[in-house]
Amino acid sequence: MRYYPKIEFDVEKAAEFLELSPSRLEDIIEKRNLKQNWDEYNNIYRFEGHAPHLEDGTVLIDHYDHFELVRGFPKIKRAMLLEPAVKRSFSGIDTVAVEEKMNGYNVRVIEYNGKLIAFTRSGHICPYSTERVQNLLKMDIFTDHPDIVVYGEMAGPENPYVQKHVYGIDSLEFFVFDIRYRDTGKVLPLQMRRELAEEYGFKQVRLFGEFDIIEAPKRITEIIRELGRSGREGVVIKDPEMVLQPIKYTCSESNCNDLKQAFKFYNEAGRDYLFSRVVREGFQSHEWNESEEDFKKRCLSLGESILRPMKGTIAEVESGVRISDDFRIRVKDLEVVEKFRAYLERLGLYVVFEEPEKTGDEYVISVKKMNKSTNDKTLAMLEGQLWS
Amino acid sequence: MRYYPKIEFDVEKAAEFLELSPSRLEDIIEKRNLKQNWDEYNNIYRFEGHAPHLEDGTVLIDHYDHFELVRGFPKIKRAMLLEPAVKRSFSGIDTVAVEEKMNGYNVRVIEYNGKLIAFTRSGHICPYSTERVQNLLKMDIFTDHPDIVVYGEMAGPENPYVQKHVYGIDSLEFFVFDIRYRDTGKVLPLQMRRELAEEYGFKQVRLFGEFDIIEAPKRITEIIRELGRSGREGVVIKDPEMVLQPIKYTCSESNCNDLKQAFKFYNEAGRDYLFSRVVREGFQSHEWNESEEDFKKRCLSLGESILRPMKGTIAEVESGVRISDDFRIRVKDLEVVEKFRAYLERLGLYVVFEEPEKTGDEYVISVKKMNKSTNDKTLAMLEGQLWS
Repeated sequence: MRYYPKIEFDVEKAAEFLELSPSRLEDIIEKRNLKQNWDEYNNIYRFEGHAPHLEDGTVLIDHYDHFELVRGFPKIKRAMLLEPAVKRSFSGIDTVAVEEKMNGYNVRVIEYNGKLIAFTRSGHICPYSTERVQNLLKMDIFTDHPDIVVYGEMAGPENPYVQKHVYGIDSLEFFVFDIRYRDTGKVLPLQMRRELAEEYGFKQVRLFGEFDIIEAPKRITEIIRELGRSGREGVVIKDPEMVLQPIKYTCSESNCNDLKQAFKFYNEAGRDYLFSRVVREGFQSHEWNESEEDFKKRCLSLGESILRPMKGTIAEVESGVRISDDFRIRVKDLEVVEKFRAYLERLGLYVVFEEPEKTGDEYVISVKKMNKSTNDKTLAMLEGQLWS
Repeated sequence: MRYYPKIEFDVEKAAEFLELSPSRLEDIIEKRNLKQNWDEYNNIYRFEGHAPHLEDGTVLIDHYDHFELVRGFPKIKRAMLLEPAVKRSFSGIDTVAVEEKMNGYNVRVIEYNGKLIAFTRSGHICPYSTERVQNLLKMDIFTDHPDIVVYGEMAGPENPYVQKHVYGIDSLEFFVFDIRYRDTGKVLPLQMRRELAEEYGFKQVRLFGEFDIIEAPKRITEIIRELGRSGREGVVIKDPEMVLQPIKYTCSESNCNDLKQAFKFYNEAGRDYLFSRVVREGFQSHEWNESEEDFKKRCLSLGESILRPMKGTIAEVESGVRISDDFRIRVKDLEVVEKFRAYLERLGLYVVFEEPEKTGDEYVISVKKMNKSTNDKTLAMLEGQLWS
């Protein structure tokens, strides 16, 4: 089903641009770690797996007379124990800035031939996100600074990936959390980035403040408890100069909400996905030095986040319903719907699109992503098959 | 550290005996899926991975003038939903026999050169189990029936693998659950096996009875609830003729106890180990049609089984203690201790043996199995390293 055409550029020249040996680049291509986009973007390629010196999802654009890179967003590592992690990660600086980590999906936006395009984390050009950023973002920042990439979180209920109602957003919004230069990946210092984003009218992730490094763990813990109560995800802790690597830290409630969502489709839920979330709870509980009562609440909440959605799925499948991941998208141009459907199918997903409903100058479309593996496994168990 | 000497037998002849082509056997050897034992048993080999038609852990004995096979114990598949699984697995027969599944470790015993030897599930010759079966079992069954393999569970607190105090055993006992013929793997019908084991004075796993297939799920559910309350593991449901494949079904309490044990060493705990146990809880909760109150108890119990031991480990490591898996063994002959230590080290384990203490005509030795991965990971987090 997937579509991986051949590489069409001059490998020698591309290798020179990427500062790789031609044989190394050949090797990457042969291992299918450099993939071509389709349709109008078939001169745009993405790196998968580990290309040397390049973040996963880094994009290579073949402009025919020259190449260009759009670096992937660097993976932010996670603090398990906040206090020692803050101390160790930011030793040598006096203050850290704390911004909200929103629960949506990560996109990179660039200007390309007079239009904006939105890359997902993996470097795919998502037709839906691309259409949305045309409507959400103004071009002028890219006109004034043609060499920048704007990194942001697309958050809100009307999206195909992570639907959240906790941000007071009706549809979908774009929140800037990073601005970098193309090719080099060089990043703007935090205040400069916030000022630039402000100047051009972007929404941005919330800045909780800049805290003295000694005080920071205590302040962040308070922020995390508050964010947890309101169903939000967590924080990213940053060196204001953006020289040291940022780290992330998240709320138990967000953790459990992830599991709730994932275990509706228990047979698709990654083993690592479960394990990593469970382990976070253990470390947070230790660091917070919880009372026995609070600890039991955490245990109950963890157990329930796993078992309740799973039970719901078994009951639904038993009642004859097939479970699916349901979401809504909103577009101005119906052509985008077809492109987006083709995109999801190319990614190997089985999706059912309902008829578009016109509201104002836009269309709203309900989509069901079918989860064959969990449906099939549950049916098999109900029919008396054995696990393994 | 591991020790894999070369194969010393005639591959052509062995292939003929195994009914494989010589090239297929060469391939198995090359992939290191046939391994030689060490010391006095270096003419005994075990199959690992998937050799065709042979269960994992199947043993090949090179008697120099002929070969012999000791088949591995077939994997028993698990019922997730008891009622449909019993119906489907035993359709066409009227009754099923229900025996206790004990929580110890699976060994196969054969007579070899006038002595008993005990193979673990994987086909290793465990020096400790071998010494123990000499003392626990009488030879006469093997003298009268030299072509049998006795399969049983070694259970009780004094063992290196699974220590349980729920069986009222002070040290370690051997409970027969299967008797098969060497080479063919042909199995004795249940009653015949129980009579034979009885006749020769073996302890056996408990037989709860033979139940009408229609009634069986209800009866087994009662048994499982009762076993759960007393901390036992579960049942194996069998065709009395042993023609249809048996299936297993276990208690939630046993499930949670497994997790409690595993999550003390959270970084060694397999992702699959966690996932599979979690999923069992979901299905049992559905089938038992639990009240909200009972469901919440199950959720709490699941969450606590994971987080409490993990928290304990973090606190211990923080206090400067290194966690270990502590057990006790008991031998008549101190030479076995050295053999057993060498055996564990060859398996790649880091173990600390305390001085033997003499009690009666035996020695008791405390052993610590060090779990480097969990100790190291916990220390790293306490020092502020990031998860990944």
